Amino acid sequence: VEALVVRHGPPRTVRFLNNYAAPQPTPGEVIVRVRLAGICATDLEIVRGYMSFSGVPGHEFVGTVIDGSQRLRDRRVVAEINCVCGNCDMCSRGLSSHCRRRTVLGIQNRDGAFAELLSVPERNCHVVPDEVSDEQAVFTEPLAAAVQVVKLQPVDRWTDVTVIGSGRLGLLVAQVLKLQGCRLQVVGRNPRTLAFCERRGIQPIELTELVPKATRDVVVECTGSPEGLRLAIQLCRPRGTIVLKSTYAQPAPADLTPIVVNELHVLGSRCGPFPEALQLLRQRQVEVEEMISRTYPLKMGVQAFEAAASPQEIKVLLRPGGA
Amino acid sequence: VEALVVRHGPPRTVRFLNNYAAPQPTPGEVIVRVRLAGICATDLEIVRGYMSFSGVPGHEFVGTVIDGSQRLRDRRVVAEINCVCGNCDMCSRGLSSHCRRRTVLGIQNRDGAFAELLSVPERNCHVVPDEVSDEQAVFTEPLAAAVQVVKLQPVDRWTDVTVIGSGRLGLLVAQVLKLQGCRLQVVGRNPRTLAFCERRGIQPIELTELVPKATRDVVVECTGSPEGLRLAIQLCRPRGTIVLKSTYAQPAPADLTPIVVNELHVLGSRCGPFPEALQLLRQRQVEVEEMISRTYPLKMGVQAFEAAASPQEIKVLLRPGGA
Repeated sequence: VEALVVRHGPPRTVRFLNNYAAPQPTPGEVIVRVRLAGICATDLEIVRGYMSFSGVPGHEFVGTVIDGSQRLRDRRVVAEINCVCGNCDMCSRGLSSHCRRRTVLGIQNRDGAFAELLSVPERNCHVVPDEVSDEQAVFTEPLAAAVQVVKLQPVDRWTDVTVIGSGRLGLLVAQVLKLQGCRLQVVGRNPRTLAFCERRGIQPIELTELVPKATRDVVVECTGSPEGLRLAIQLCRPRGTIVLKSTYAQPAPADLTPIVVNELHVLGSRCGPFPEALQLLRQRQVEVEEMISRTYPLKMGVQAFEAAASPQEIKVLLRPGGA
Repeated sequence: VEALVVRHGPPRTVRFLNNYAAPQPTPGEVIVRVRLAGICATDLEIVRGYMSFSGVPGHEFVGTVIDGSQRLRDRRVVAEINCVCGNCDMCSRGLSSHCRRRTVLGIQNRDGAFAELLSVPERNCHVVPDEVSDEQAVFTEPLAAAVQVVKLQPVDRWTDVTVIGSGRLGLLVAQVLKLQGCRLQVVGRNPRTLAFCERRGIQPIELTELVPKATRDVVVECTGSPEGLRLAIQLCRPRGTIVLKSTYAQPAPADLTPIVVNELHVLGSRCGPFPEALQLLRQRQVEVEEMISRTYPLKMGVQAFEAAASPQEIKVLLRPGGA
């Protein structure tokens, strides 16, 4: 089958293959034909060596189940990315997304979605409502991660919130926060994405015009850069909360003393609830299609990765040839 | 008056003077004759340049009020270290320890306690009960900071807690946690302080024998070192909590990705409630006198600082000559 394949190396390589082995499902798994997949920052880190991953990357996708489940056959689905054991201390205590023995689609010991076909546990799948297009559904995973921010840190109309970063993730997080009615600002560098915020009624702030004051109740860091973390610490008021949404590819040297002196709360946040994300898409409460910069055929995956790394692009999608 | 004086410089100097100007109280302040003062890690950082402080360091003390208040005259007192405006947004919202215009005894724009006399706001003072000795009372400030840990992060008998660092602060934090009945371990390097833990019924773990696993519900970092932070991140279970108790003199380069991936909560914690600390001392629920390594006369303050920097010493105290 067609697939984009990373070899951790050395040397590290990223190549398109049209003769990659078809996935072999284990019991409880279904085979999904990928309709559309999205490239996110984690994928860009993975091709730079993050997680020492070898195999097919990709964890944001929508596809059609072609085998392995009567119930789901021919249905359009999206799938949660953590494939879990069900038995370890985390699974048995209701934290299965932190399963000690998990594999993660396209991230950890399991092939992902930048391929014609992939295999996923049936229980990870969520059926996509008919009203939700493929172009919307492919955002389910990152939108769920955005929803998780307000699960971990509820906000309301009295909460001053700043999102740092107006990229792919920042725009989703900002839209979810906006729905809560909080007093929201998004700090970014890209005029196009800041204009997107403005159209959605979200106050955009150009990074170079920001005068950081420690006044924000909640700051959500969506850049994954040491500069983003430093800015978050500067913006957050004493006893306020910083939510870290992005992984840091390198150790980020940051002065953590203000976290102690200002008694900040720092919350790490990763995956979120798919049902709520699908609901937001179905009700069109979050605009995602406008965020799509380009869609490449899978065989141009290497070029698509280069495009996705450009600050000019927002969301870059991949479409397998057979889809 | 006698005082130990830091000049931020350059060059940075720490000297004992016997002709330092007596404090000039402003309205609402009292003059305190220092009976006994303690050296903590923040003081050691201050003489290395932290906060660019110039003046008299020292913020842990017990003294006798000699002027400025009828009510407190001749009473033994301890004093909270944040001197606040009462008017800013933090003060008016009940977070006066984060006052935007605060001065801090011996740390920020205000002379501290390594002197014969100091001036403090009357409202900062707490009368020391007769049953509490000077040697106990001098621990009120750091013990209050230790109490703050369980204010921010309540624990109970089902909570697995690790304290990293068996120094001055770690031993106080561990004793406060022990009172909550949690399942407690203290990781340290000093056989003497680890033996202190054992005598108090707290499980000691020698750092070199620790095999870090991500299983602890709560980890309290009391070393202020990048290694301590890294170890805290390794020990904390997914969705667990790390409490940072110590300031970091240098930017600590740490891999923060596990905070995101494991969805950790990181809480900074600084000052705590004096009344509860005095209560714990009065009821002898926390053992502090055994933690005293040595008491130096103030005029040997420079040597006392050198001693306090040694890992062999626990608490080093200073006693002004006139006290």
